[in-house]
Amino acid sequence: VLEAADLRGIDSHGVARLHTYFELLVAGAINPKPHIRVIHETPSTATVDGDNGLGLIVGPRANAIAIAKAKTVGSGWVAVQNTNHYGIAGYYPLKAIEEDMIGMSMTNTTALVAPCFGAAKMLGTNPIAIGVPAGEEPYVLIDMATSAVAYGKVEIADRTGKSMPEGWCIDKDGVMTTDPKRMKAGGALLPLGSDRERSSHKGYCMSAFVDIMCGPLSGANWGPFTPPFALRDKVVVGAKTASEKRVGKGIGHFFGAWRVDAFRPADEFKGQMDEWIRTFRASKAVPGRKVLIPGDPEREALEVRSVSGVPLTEAVVADLEDISETTGVPFDRKLFSVDSV
Amino acid sequence: VLEAADLRGIDSHGVARLHTYFELLVAGAINPKPHIRVIHETPSTATVDGDNGLGLIVGPRANAIAIAKAKTVGSGWVAVQNTNHYGIAGYYPLKAIEEDMIGMSMTNTTALVAPCFGAAKMLGTNPIAIGVPAGEEPYVLIDMATSAVAYGKVEIADRTGKSMPEGWCIDKDGVMTTDPKRMKAGGALLPLGSDRERSSHKGYCMSAFVDIMCGPLSGANWGPFTPPFALRDKVVVGAKTASEKRVGKGIGHFFGAWRVDAFRPADEFKGQMDEWIRTFRASKAVPGRKVLIPGDPEREALEVRSVSGVPLTEAVVADLEDISETTGVPFDRKLFSVDSV
Repeated sequence: VLEAADLRGIDSHGVARLHTYFELLVAGAINPKPHIRVIHETPSTATVDGDNGLGLIVGPRANAIAIAKAKTVGSGWVAVQNTNHYGIAGYYPLKAIEEDMIGMSMTNTTALVAPCFGAAKMLGTNPIAIGVPAGEEPYVLIDMATSAVAYGKVEIADRTGKSMPEGWCIDKDGVMTTDPKRMKAGGALLPLGSDRERSSHKGYCMSAFVDIMCGPLSGANWGPFTPPFALRDKVVVGAKTASEKRVGKGIGHFFGAWRVDAFRPADEFKGQMDEWIRTFRASKAVPGRKVLIPGDPEREALEVRSVSGVPLTEAVVADLEDISETTGVPFDRKLFSVDSV
Repeated sequence: VLEAADLRGIDSHGVARLHTYFELLVAGAINPKPHIRVIHETPSTATVDGDNGLGLIVGPRANAIAIAKAKTVGSGWVAVQNTNHYGIAGYYPLKAIEEDMIGMSMTNTTALVAPCFGAAKMLGTNPIAIGVPAGEEPYVLIDMATSAVAYGKVEIADRTGKSMPEGWCIDKDGVMTTDPKRMKAGGALLPLGSDRERSSHKGYCMSAFVDIMCGPLSGANWGPFTPPFALRDKVVVGAKTASEKRVGKGIGHFFGAWRVDAFRPADEFKGQMDEWIRTFRASKAVPGRKVLIPGDPEREALEVRSVSGVPLTEAVVADLEDISETTGVPFDRKLFSVDSV
């Protein structure tokens, strides 16, 4: 899952995170040998208990159950409780696409986002991913946080000493701010839409939807009670708002798949998707830009990196060496092309 | 369906639209006696041909099929082709909520919205509605266009001679504009997110998702080929961009329902939803505001209007009288409280 992120240019969710998962395993915060099991099901649905395993292990298993159910009855839906962060949301619909299905994946995450009119972190960046197969054209792959931007963009602005555009963040009093330090001092990210005038209630609604499907429906924690991703998050991110209160088990995911030929013959659908993709790609753009198909940027990175490899920063390579030293798993630095980004 | 909109304060989608539906029926553009039928199905899915009927008739029938399938196998999904506008998207999940299900509804509509980086109308305002039952607390009901704002807000600004906030619209060259007249002269609405810096690619993705589920999957038209809602739209809205080309039949809808107890016992879920709702309602808000639950504004209107009635403008009452005169269906003006809004 981490490699899929790196190959697609989503460096924030690639092996750069391996050390964090490693820390959680070493600290005993994550179960290295989970007994993943279905605790409730119908022909088209299931609820899975991830037994506090790595989301990278629990997620693919639960997603495979959704796909198997879709094969049998046309669609399949799996809510997951007692799990941990599962990498890029977009990894999962890729598996559905391979089976001529439309796939969906979502997860709730540590609270970082304020509701519309809110002044406190109440929801995670709660991503949704949707994948759609095509015929001759490449697939459509949506993979988006439901916040205006990802937290990583605030961190980059902070590190580089830059101000942020309006509409990304509020400070601890709920006032919109362009200063990343004010956001980090008890502020919050804003939902997609940024403010009420530009419909931040809609981004709030999408994030709430993800939270409800992943939390109350699965039996996982939700909203401000969602546990932090990393041990250090407890201090760095969560200190001001994260509660020790738990309303369920772990975090939650939600996976789905619709078999295309449960609605119409797959070749007909794929022919229409090819025409859809070509029509949008050829549509009028603003000067100097072109209209993209969801998934295009990641696909371009995949083409380059599949040939030239994944550039890693020195910090990430050092993290991998550290894991190697502790575990004894061999690591040869020379095999990695090191970028100074 | 129209009454449900009016009672919830969504005047733009209530009986104010009856005359438009009436015109379409009189002109023979809509089939008054459709033979609505399932043309493809699996245990959890179906595709419905609406036989060019009123969306207000076809939509409830197709939605009922989704709910019936969810009763049998846990979830149900229905794509609809060859249909017409179906009223408020939020009407349909209300039916799922009555059955202790989470409901979903979406429809594609006449192109009015530009993609991220685009300079032409390629997608409708493509709404998504999601309804979630609760226990002691009232249900959660999301009902949102995937554009930054609805076209009605542009029309209001134009009629009242006001400028619009940044982030709603572009002009015919793709340049952001605050002048409603420049939008109406060949411009377009922007997707939720407004511009790339504030993630308009995400609103574009959500709108594309709705279009794909309603168009290519059902066999209906999609994107710029989606036929106009009203006869007059051909002139007023669609003239610059609407194509006579058709890639399917009519417009499309997509309905879904997940049985709550297909994932966990319904009382457990509803208890969690009650706590979810109370937690968000009680969360810290910006001064002078409160954090709302999706559906609150419509619920407040419903409480008032269920007692005091629905205020209609003189223009709407005159439209109703006109229908009465043509059809002979009795209409007593005195029964209506006329508002001068």
